[in-house]
Amino acid sequence: MPPRKYAAILGNLGNTKDRFCGGYKDNPDTYEMLRRAGSIPNVTGIELVGTWDIRPDNIQQMKRELANVNLRCVSIIPDLFADAVYGKGSFSSSDAAIRRRALDYTQQMCEIARALDCPLLNLWLGQDGYDYLLCADYDSARSWMRDGLAEVAQANPDLRFALEYKPKEPRCRSYQATMADTLLMCTEIGHDNVGVCIDTGHGFVAGENIGEAIVLARRAGDRLFHMHFNDNHGHWDDDMIVGTVHSACYVEMLYWLDRTGYVGWLSMDQYPYREDAAGAIGESVAWLMKFDAMQRKNREKIDRLIQQNNAVETSRFLRGIL
Amino acid sequence: MPPRKYAAILGNLGNTKDRFCGGYKDNPDTYEMLRRAGSIPNVTGIELVGTWDIRPDNIQQMKRELANVNLRCVSIIPDLFADAVYGKGSFSSSDAAIRRRALDYTQQMCEIARALDCPLLNLWLGQDGYDYLLCADYDSARSWMRDGLAEVAQANPDLRFALEYKPKEPRCRSYQATMADTLLMCTEIGHDNVGVCIDTGHGFVAGENIGEAIVLARRAGDRLFHMHFNDNHGHWDDDMIVGTVHSACYVEMLYWLDRTGYVGWLSMDQYPYREDAAGAIGESVAWLMKFDAMQRKNREKIDRLIQQNNAVETSRFLRGIL
Amino acid sequence: MPPRKYAAILGNLGNTKDRFCGGYKDNPDTYEMLRRAGSIPNVTGIELVGTWDIRPDNIQQMKRELANVNLRCVSIIPDLFADAVYGKGSFSSSDAAIRRRALDYTQQMCEIARALDCPLLNLWLGQDGYDYLLCADYDSARSWMRDGLAEVAQANPDLRFALEYKPKEPRCRSYQATMADTLLMCTEIGHDNVGVCIDTGHGFVAGENIGEAIVLARRAGDRLFHMHFNDNHGHWDDDMIVGTVHSACYVEMLYWLDRTGYVGWLSMDQYPYREDAAGAIGESVAWLMKFDAMQRKNREKIDRLIQQNNAVETSRFLRGIL
Amino acid sequence: MPPRKYAAILGNLGNTKDRFCGGYKDNPDTYEMLRRAGSIPNVTGIELVGTWDIRPDNIQQMKRELANVNLRCVSIIPDLFADAVYGKGSFSSSDAAIRRRALDYTQQMCEIARALDCPLLNLWLGQDGYDYLLCADYDSARSWMRDGLAEVAQANPDLRFALEYKPKEPRCRSYQATMADTLLMCTEIGHDNVGVCIDTGHGFVAGENIGEAIVLARRAGDRLFHMHFNDNHGHWDDDMIVGTVHSACYVEMLYWLDRTGYVGWLSMDQYPYREDAAGAIGESVAWLMKFDAMQRKNREKIDRLIQQNNAVETSRFLRGIL
Repeated sequence: MPPRKYAAILGNLGNTKDRFCGGYKDNPDTYEMLRRAGSIPNVTGIELVGTWDIRPDNIQQMKRELANVNLRCVSIIPDLFADAVYGKGSFSSSDAAIRRRALDYTQQMCEIARALDCPLLNLWLGQDGYDYLLCADYDSARSWMRDGLAEVAQANPDLRFALEYKPKEPRCRSYQATMADTLLMCTEIGHDNVGVCIDTGHGFVAGENIGEAIVLARRAGDRLFHMHFNDNHGHWDDDMIVGTVHSACYVEMLYWLDRTGYVGWLSMDQYPYREDAAGAIGESVAWLMKFDAMQRKNREKIDRLIQQNNAVETSRFLRGIL
Repeated sequence: MPPRKYAAILGNLGNTKDRFCGGYKDNPDTYEMLRRAGSIPNVTGIELVGTWDIRPDNIQQMKRELANVNLRCVSIIPDLFADAVYGKGSFSSSDAAIRRRALDYTQQMCEIARALDCPLLNLWLGQDGYDYLLCADYDSARSWMRDGLAEVAQANPDLRFALEYKPKEPRCRSYQATMADTLLMCTEIGHDNVGVCIDTGHGFVAGENIGEAIVLARRAGDRLFHMHFNDNHGHWDDDMIVGTVHSACYVEMLYWLDRTGYVGWLSMDQYPYREDAAGAIGESVAWLMKFDAMQRKNREKIDRLIQQNNAVETSRFLRGIL
Repeated sequence: MPPRKYAAILGNLGNTKDRFCGGYKDNPDTYEMLRRAGSIPNVTGIELVGTWDIRPDNIQQMKRELANVNLRCVSIIPDLFADAVYGKGSFSSSDAAIRRRALDYTQQMCEIARALDCPLLNLWLGQDGYDYLLCADYDSARSWMRDGLAEVAQANPDLRFALEYKPKEPRCRSYQATMADTLLMCTEIGHDNVGVCIDTGHGFVAGENIGEAIVLARRAGDRLFHMHFNDNHGHWDDDMIVGTVHSACYVEMLYWLDRTGYVGWLSMDQYPYREDAAGAIGESVAWLMKFDAMQRKNREKIDRLIQQNNAVETSRFLRGIL
Repeated sequence: MPPRKYAAILGNLGNTKDRFCGGYKDNPDTYEMLRRAGSIPNVTGIELVGTWDIRPDNIQQMKRELANVNLRCVSIIPDLFADAVYGKGSFSSSDAAIRRRALDYTQQMCEIARALDCPLLNLWLGQDGYDYLLCADYDSARSWMRDGLAEVAQANPDLRFALEYKPKEPRCRSYQATMADTLLMCTEIGHDNVGVCIDTGHGFVAGENIGEAIVLARRAGDRLFHMHFNDNHGHWDDDMIVGTVHSACYVEMLYWLDRTGYVGWLSMDQYPYREDAAGAIGESVAWLMKFDAMQRKNREKIDRLIQQNNAVETSRFLRGIL
């Protein structure tokens, strides 16, 4: 089996805030965050958020700094969620000018990706959704989203686009809410370079079993392009350290990643509000390595267990490895 | 706009039980339940559960009784969920003999439907799912389900099949859990006579906004074949009277039914554990008629509101009609 | 029955942000917000957040401005949740110096309340809780919280203190999470001037039926001191306009407020991220007036219905008034 | 530290059903179930459900059979939930005759407990609650419940009564829904021999962290009398094998059981719908023994961690032991 590749999102190393508190920690600059990321054992990839971390003006510097810390840019995440102009939607906005702006901005990010040899854009369209009933035309919104994403995908056939779903926050309801509805959108878009990013915590909030979501993506045409890892208490995107709440489900999802031939990155996406960020991210990687070793060492055993469908046997197995 | 057609599921008129209590009410026989259903104002259609209500041996009697109470059989629901033989799955069972049995039984129900001039089978595959992690091969299970359903659909091109999704119960996790994953299954099956049934309460538990689910079904090729109505407190399939918890969302969903050109039945699917069943079902119909009148009278106003995307205006409107 | 008194929280009129976006709207200053609040029909009270809105240095100016807009300060909410110094707790912090600081700061707010003829402090201890398992000593934390709150209560017998509970956010788990655990804390504190504030949305997230929570508070010694109103989709503190998701439960809760003799304020606590704030708050007040008229006009009918325990009859009643 | 004592509920060894399926397994008689229970390693106690397992007529036989299989009766659970007469409540019924019946029946069970040297009655009042809004008088219901339970407690000072809470099922809302509201009821009852039973799965559904619930019970006067163990997916009482979904929280709860001096039984309460019951229960005991060994071996380390409040350190610790 191919070796795993671990990454992190750069912003996870920075300051944290919520709607009440404007910042719990210090405010390191981009390159200081990069150095912190570079210090995390086993992390070799980094995801950059557009505008925040990477812009046309700092491409060359970023290339040098990435080289210095031995990190590869594995994804760019356009900022279509923190800019208030997209407060009522980006690609699905009912305002054609805003849709055009989202599209142009994303195209700019594609060019930056190319300049950084980064193969993937991770599109989390956090503002594309709605809050109140009877306030949005769900049908038009999806058509706009489909058309815009198709245009970007077609214009950049050398890049891959991973749509990251999440049921809610910052909107009360997101258009890309679950694996299945995001796969439907991929089908509507109709380009092979558009797929899905699973954020494990988003999936938990959506009530998904991630192992099953991975299978859905494979069946819909090998659409799993990217993975974001974190843990939570099951009801909200707490963005916690992997393994601090759940255990068995990570063993299962890593098994299914292998079974479906996933070769992408395992990227950490946390929001360590009050924790040492590098430490928290490092912990997640270490937990994943532990869970991964468990399942890879027992691959054939697990193959048998999922055929047997006997919960007592599976429990005995899990009890032996955890 | 076409007039609405209201129906109910026959079993809703019978005794109720849960995993603790074996029966809260009396045990009326099939035809007594039918008479009770016939007495509910505005209800003109009935759904029959296979084996429980309808079998090869009572087709002729059922036809007569239906005529007597002026009800039309609008759907047959094969019992693939209460027979312990399907306890670990029917169409997705890992046991080929059980899959064959489910298929043959469903075929038998198709023939009964034909005999009763019933145009639709409602397939709620409640046992098709899993309880524990690492106990099921999600990939094979879906392939088996797809193959079996495709075989039935192909063999009965004159009938329509509505897959009813539900996130859980009786299994901890169902394969047909949400609108979106059920649409993916429809796509895999690849027959135009396979679509979806929304049970509003199942959708609430899945975290869906039903108005949006209706739009998803239309976009995936007009796949909304049937509707089951009830209400709940948001976390479980309480199967309550429509309108006793939620209000605005019913106005919205009826609006979207009209917008997407839905011409199917509005069927009541409740489980009145401790209530007078005919009274409870009648209440649901009456609430729906009330909500429907509200939105149909204000169709153009709502058209504008969903373009405006202004929650204060929408609130003012809802406050005026509720 | 006594006339209702409506209020709002001043900050609801200001800018809104979330952990992604630093601000969706304009940044009105304190007195501009006050003027906006004063313009909302039927609102005669205002709640001020400590430090943000009111400090020792602007007491006199605030008095003048309040008089200008004909608003009465009905509660002060000490800022124990947005100041990063309390990031791991205020009254329950494991650091004695931080606990002392929280206490001194709250005492300062008591003096301001007195200067403004404000009878109540609303204590939302949002940072008092924990995020991860095995990271907090729940027993000591509660003792510290109890001791600090008791000291404040004893030192200010002329003021009332309302503890506002919320299951989570900003912490993954709050110590004051539900009505019942907050009443247990009131009992531990042992002073009659300590009670509870219900935020309806917090209660929904906690899985409470607010009508029942009101009864719990009365039974524990008339502990309901204050009410914050908003609506949400049931899973998160969406802080929406009252009535845009739920209806019947507001009728019920207003009924129980009357039944238990509640004479406090009905204060709006929303977070209109993308809405016109004054409009959104005004809508909530208007919905409450509508629901209140429904229940007060039918008081005896409802008295009978809750004795009858017949869901069909209750449904018929609700269908008639909504 | 005292050795743990493990028990099981007898009915867990029997047939299983749900509201759809009347039985997934065989129907062993009471004594066959007892033999199966007796075969589970490390289980030395048994809980009997009133009427189902134990009645005035089989006390002597039960004593012999218990002796044969070396099991001690550690609790009797009166059947106040499966008998349709209590369908709208037992101790809180609005019908005085039903309340009297519940009381007399419970008294009969007290006498049986005495005859079996069983020290505790576990009262799960599953039907005491409500389904619909505006259908119940929450205030009177609680008074009736309080009075009835107080009468039983006073009449049987040599026995202990553990109130088992659960947010819902079979009612949409239960009066005893969480640890905190059950403690409020204990306070109202005012007898030292009335306390609480935690069912871990019920607590998960209630959104509780059980470790914290244990602390609440201790602070309210050492009210934790009994423990029921199982696991679930977080949203419903799935009654699964301990450890198959969650891990870290069991380590934490066992730590707090020791910290608060709990000396009661650890009883397994599962509902193995499709599993070998003895195997499933045995697995739960084995998981608990494993988790318990982890925390007892690291008692001082955990003492330090919960003072440190450093999630990275706690993660590292958990990663080392799991």
